[in-house]
Amino acid sequence: MKRTLAAELGAHVGERVCVQGWLHALRKMGDVNFLIVRDRTGLIQAVTAETDLKPLDGLQLETVVQVEGEVVASTAAPGGYELYHNVVNVISPVTTPLPFSLHKNRIRASQPVFLDHAVIGHRHLQQRAVLRLAAGVMRGFRETLHARDFVEIQTPKLVASATESGANVFAVDYFGQKAYLAQSPQFYKQIMVGVFERVYEIGPVFRAEPHSTIRHINEYVSLDVEFGFIENHFTVMQMLTEVIRGILDHLQINHAADLNMLNAGLPTLVEPIPHIHITDAQRMLTDRYGVTDAIGEPDLTPEHERLLGRWAQETFKSDYLFVVGYPMVKRPFYTYPDPERPGYSRSFDLLFRGMELVTGGQRLHRYNDYIAAATERGYNLAPFETYFEAFKHGMPPHGGFAIGLERFLTQLLGLENIRMATLFPRDMNRLTP
Amino acid sequence: MKRTLAAELGAHVGERVCVQGWLHALRKMGDVNFLIVRDRTGLIQAVTAETDLKPLDGLQLETVVQVEGEVVASTAAPGGYELYHNVVNVISPVTTPLPFSLHKNRIRASQPVFLDHAVIGHRHLQQRAVLRLAAGVMRGFRETLHARDFVEIQTPKLVASATESGANVFAVDYFGQKAYLAQSPQFYKQIMVGVFERVYEIGPVFRAEPHSTIRHINEYVSLDVEFGFIENHFTVMQMLTEVIRGILDHLQINHAADLNMLNAGLPTLVEPIPHIHITDAQRMLTDRYGVTDAIGEPDLTPEHERLLGRWAQETFKSDYLFVVGYPMVKRPFYTYPDPERPGYSRSFDLLFRGMELVTGGQRLHRYNDYIAAATERGYNLAPFETYFEAFKHGMPPHGGFAIGLERFLTQLLGLENIRMATLFPRDMNRLTP
Repeated sequence: MKRTLAAELGAHVGERVCVQGWLHALRKMGDVNFLIVRDRTGLIQAVTAETDLKPLDGLQLETVVQVEGEVVASTAAPGGYELYHNVVNVISPVTTPLPFSLHKNRIRASQPVFLDHAVIGHRHLQQRAVLRLAAGVMRGFRETLHARDFVEIQTPKLVASATESGANVFAVDYFGQKAYLAQSPQFYKQIMVGVFERVYEIGPVFRAEPHSTIRHINEYVSLDVEFGFIENHFTVMQMLTEVIRGILDHLQINHAADLNMLNAGLPTLVEPIPHIHITDAQRMLTDRYGVTDAIGEPDLTPEHERLLGRWAQETFKSDYLFVVGYPMVKRPFYTYPDPERPGYSRSFDLLFRGMELVTGGQRLHRYNDYIAAATERGYNLAPFETYFEAFKHGMPPHGGFAIGLERFLTQLLGLENIRMATLFPRDMNRLTP
Repeated sequence: MKRTLAAELGAHVGERVCVQGWLHALRKMGDVNFLIVRDRTGLIQAVTAETDLKPLDGLQLETVVQVEGEVVASTAAPGGYELYHNVVNVISPVTTPLPFSLHKNRIRASQPVFLDHAVIGHRHLQQRAVLRLAAGVMRGFRETLHARDFVEIQTPKLVASATESGANVFAVDYFGQKAYLAQSPQFYKQIMVGVFERVYEIGPVFRAEPHSTIRHINEYVSLDVEFGFIENHFTVMQMLTEVIRGILDHLQINHAADLNMLNAGLPTLVEPIPHIHITDAQRMLTDRYGVTDAIGEPDLTPEHERLLGRWAQETFKSDYLFVVGYPMVKRPFYTYPDPERPGYSRSFDLLFRGMELVTGGQRLHRYNDYIAAATERGYNLAPFETYFEAFKHGMPPHGGFAIGLERFLTQLLGLENIRMATLFPRDMNRLTP
């Protein structure tokens, strides 16, 4: 008999069907027993007599089973239907008990225990929703950019030198030579603006930063965008706004059930997203919130960002806020300086509910400017040779941004730790599973 | 004035427009000069008087320019339109000559020279078409799987142990510990079948094989699929056929111009794709083509595969052929053995025009079978602990396959070397650009 999925039961009321999946739960009440099967679309309740459960004797939850039964509409059952007159068969027997329960509403394992057993933990319906939303974010990102003429690229992750500075890269033994894992596709995506004008990439990036915080992991998925023929960083901010709008719309239309499973609402995206120059932000924080450590500093602290999020909410009812114009000293050498404000740049951070979500800006595009900027920072020019070649042969004004997939999800869902939005996180203490 | 793209000129005949792009070619004929601008959508010819070219004095091709002019329909111009009464402005000046010409029909650089300067070489229209087709293959792949309920995953590339065997992995210094670059997402995609039943991933894989051939690179993009509740490897072959069909249809509909630019036709996909058991193939090669080194061997040679391609063409008029049932000794330990033919497996290779294109098959799904198979091969079980945990807690019969993006393109386009289908190839001698 052909397999029927949980989501398809409604089309088969009164018929006998065959369902397959994992033994999600089993409530034994004596004469009447409720056997819950989980498949990729949902849960199926089978109402069974004790004798029908014989094949499950000695077996544990997550045993893979097949149940043949008759579909009956039932308001009490998950999904609105249940199976009667069932024949249960075992596909893959399980004899080991679960490390923690998968059928409770929430995962009740401690985080380290969950992460140790994420291979199983991701089967929990809430965790499944988180990972489905990750796929939705990627899809919304791609659809939005594809509709705007962007071409997808896949750039190499093994590189001959560190992308932005010598620090915090993982070294690889490459046939006796030393190679590094790319910290970002920055140089390659800029190079490819010379080919396609508009490019994007979704891929892993590697950061050897020896920190252990709830906001950082050492390998993450970066959603990268770069495009040419821009006017300035505001052109980039506009595109980023469209991308975020595209992602949120995609989630709303296609992932309502996942958001619901996590009790997560979508944020308010006021368009255009309000923006404030970092120096104005520092003055405002001082005047309005009595902050004493902002003015004259080259960067914002997390507390400053938190207050800015509050201000954006109070002033614009916006969950998002652009801070623009960061000092050049805090930005990479390829950043485009603000011609009207020496020392400041055409760059931005996008804050989401008071936390940095995206960094981006306009980049230098003239070869001579690259040589001057790299020289001024005292960089050895040789490792940049092939990167600079693109600029030697003509590049338009361009810019871009990068969104961290796991950070985006963490903030969207209000998760406490980025590891809970990561398939199998990598940090200083964790290389498995 | 708002920018107009090459592809949009037809909507502006008789109007003055502003185009921007790279100085692709310049044919000086004295009084009348043809200036060709390249943008992301195509070429634009501007007919210019000598004096109008003043801003380009001393500048080279690939200078980024803006041309304002009046759109006139012209059958002689590329795209069918040209610009008159032009004002030329320089956006980014270029003073260095190109390493090789970008405006000839074909790239005339030697392959090493091309690869050294791929940063620029990819701007060639033919190379742009190759890379656009790469994006098209990825998109066709994703669309096909998305429509079949597959969920996209992004698995870690830093792993604690080698995936399939101890050899040919790149080692990474991971905070003083030793980590490795994933050779494939094999274990993770299987684990995730336990979560979503159906998953796919597009991402980089790393092979430290010290070979230097026209068919191998050491980092490539793998298109991975894995799914559960299958009957056997034929279920997997059917899904692979649908994926290939989906990719080819996507290219036909969306990339006709790119295929045309490369004079590439799409292959003939006869459905169902014919299949032959490896032992039958070896006997047929012997009987029909007089091959003497096939029967009793555990694998096919490239020459055997070539002859099988010829046979598929002669017998079925098919560019594709499945060879099934490879001996267990030539397949990884997680391969599902053929219960009816001891020593053989439920695996397959898909040949395309006589060359291996895809490998796949059914996998073991019971925990005890994994322990037995790994033990029999003498593997140390400890590194597999988290992988095996998925099987300990119930996995359905499942299987999958992996397509190498660059190999797929190489064969589709009949390229001589996989490096010409790779954005920035990595091999024993090449880590840049």
